[in-house]
Amino acid sequence: MTPRVHVFPVRVYFEDTDAGGIVYHSVYLNYAERARTEMVRGLGISQRALLERGGGTAFAVRGATMDFLRPARLDDLLRVETGIVAVGGASVELDQSIRREDDGVELVRIGVRLGYITLSGKPARIPAAIRDLFGNWIRERR
Amino acid sequence: MTPRVHVFPVRVYFEDTDAGGIVYHSVYLNYAERARTEMVRGLGISQRALLERGGGTAFAVRGATMDFLRPARLDDLLRVETGIVAVGGASVELDQSIRREDDGVELVRIGVRLGYITLSGKPARIPAAIRDLFGNWIRERR
Amino acid sequence: MTPRVHVFPVRVYFEDTDAGGIVYHSVYLNYAERARTEMVRGLGISQRALLERGGGTAFAVRGATMDFLRPARLDDLLRVETGIVAVGGASVELDQSIRREDDGVELVRIGVRLGYITLSGKPARIPAAIRDLFGNWIRERR
Amino acid sequence: MTPRVHVFPVRVYFEDTDAGGIVYHSVYLNYAERARTEMVRGLGISQRALLERGGGTAFAVRGATMDFLRPARLDDLLRVETGIVAVGGASVELDQSIRREDDGVELVRIGVRLGYITLSGKPARIPAAIRDLFGNWIRERR
Repeated sequence: MTPRVHVFPVRVYFEDTDAGGIVYHSVYLNYAERARTEMVRGLGISQRALLERGGGTAFAVRGATMDFLRPARLDDLLRVETGIVAVGGASVELDQSIRREDDGVELVRIGVRLGYITLSGKPARIPAAIRDLFGNWIRERR
Repeated sequence: MTPRVHVFPVRVYFEDTDAGGIVYHSVYLNYAERARTEMVRGLGISQRALLERGGGTAFAVRGATMDFLRPARLDDLLRVETGIVAVGGASVELDQSIRREDDGVELVRIGVRLGYITLSGKPARIPAAIRDLFGNWIRERR
Repeated sequence: MTPRVHVFPVRVYFEDTDAGGIVYHSVYLNYAERARTEMVRGLGISQRALLERGGGTAFAVRGATMDFLRPARLDDLLRVETGIVAVGGASVELDQSIRREDDGVELVRIGVRLGYITLSGKPARIPAAIRDLFGNWIRERR
Repeated sequence: MTPRVHVFPVRVYFEDTDAGGIVYHSVYLNYAERARTEMVRGLGISQRALLERGGGTAFAVRGATMDFLRPARLDDLLRVETGIVAVGGASVELDQSIRREDDGVELVRIGVRLGYITLSGKPARIPAAIRDLFGNWIRERR
């Protein structure tokens, strides 16, 4: 049976930190997007192919909520845990949690609402094959 | 009387865009932070002085909610409108709205909860002088 | 007569700094590109129009040299000085200097070689009108 | 015998690309710095420990040359090859080459000159143990 949480490792580099000595807050959204990309790639879906195919479609972030619980620091090894909460005709809702790898402490909690759109920005139906793949990952909302 | 909304202009450059042809979603958090920095600077508060003063304190983002309504594109001139919703002993809550300058259309709505912390990450009381300055800006929650 | 050096102001924000307390080195390339964009915009050239017009063309960075003389820090107000060194059929060479605004001290010196390309990456001839505009700005090489 | 070239894999994500559909040029400097960090970590040196130890020291980029040969695109898997060219008392010179993993084509060539400095920006002697480790990696200049 498919696991319900996708796990993706991220290392903190200088580029990610700020003069306060910690990871700059918007960078966690980048980490989260890397993790979603690898999750989608793991399902056999190429975002670049979606983008370059006739007309072009993409998952776009429609909404996000972020709770910054503790800071990550230079050299930290993190893991991003991603679960799917709900899949609709043109949208997907995910829960993501960024933790320190060594002790599992949760640093940032992110909720993301993705819309599926054409490159001109219009909502598009998520292909059934992709929706089914996501459906296998749905877990309970926290 | 003090205006209730701080306005800050931002231009979209190549560095801000992604292969979808629009501004990458996490970049709006950077725009929002630039606007808050200028708002605070306008009140006569230097974040660098807070950071470098004995021990060091800073405003840290504790939580954020983001609604992405429409995309910004390369070369767009935007304006970030910032209002303060509430000021507590160790936290500030703000509403920020990013609009296209030419037609005023709202692109992104951001709610931000800031905590005041020491560099070691412990909550600190916002100095009364700063709290009073913020208090003058409080507006109704949307 | 046209001035020979284009001047563009940049403010350093938290997003630009790293855990060493200074501006992260690659960020200066972003500052330099913002300045070139505004210089080009000042000549009446829209990069977005070039990009979206049939086929699409853009200036792409082909090469760069960077000398980091002194660090910029949080809250610093900088200015980017840009001069054109040479204009060819499909390339432009520029000198850029990033200085602190208050005392004029040079922090970073950047040499940039731009190529004019189609979106598929092939070299393209710079339109004569644009080449002439750039030609007016040519100055002695340092 | 120690290998002469350090190899580090990098995946291209949306955050790295721009509206031209390719990786934004300054991002390659970030990739290069990640690779140097892992090379140094592989030698048993923690940059965070150097930074946090009494006074604090760090390797800072003093100069760089970049040749952009071909663009990387969304989803590309790249590898950064790093070799050390020379080690001095307070500086290190490296050659870095960014290639596509699947066909080995070179995309970007970077030369970097690092200085070893205190957090106040003064040059510092590289500890002999670190210098020796780097010395084992020296290779011929291209």
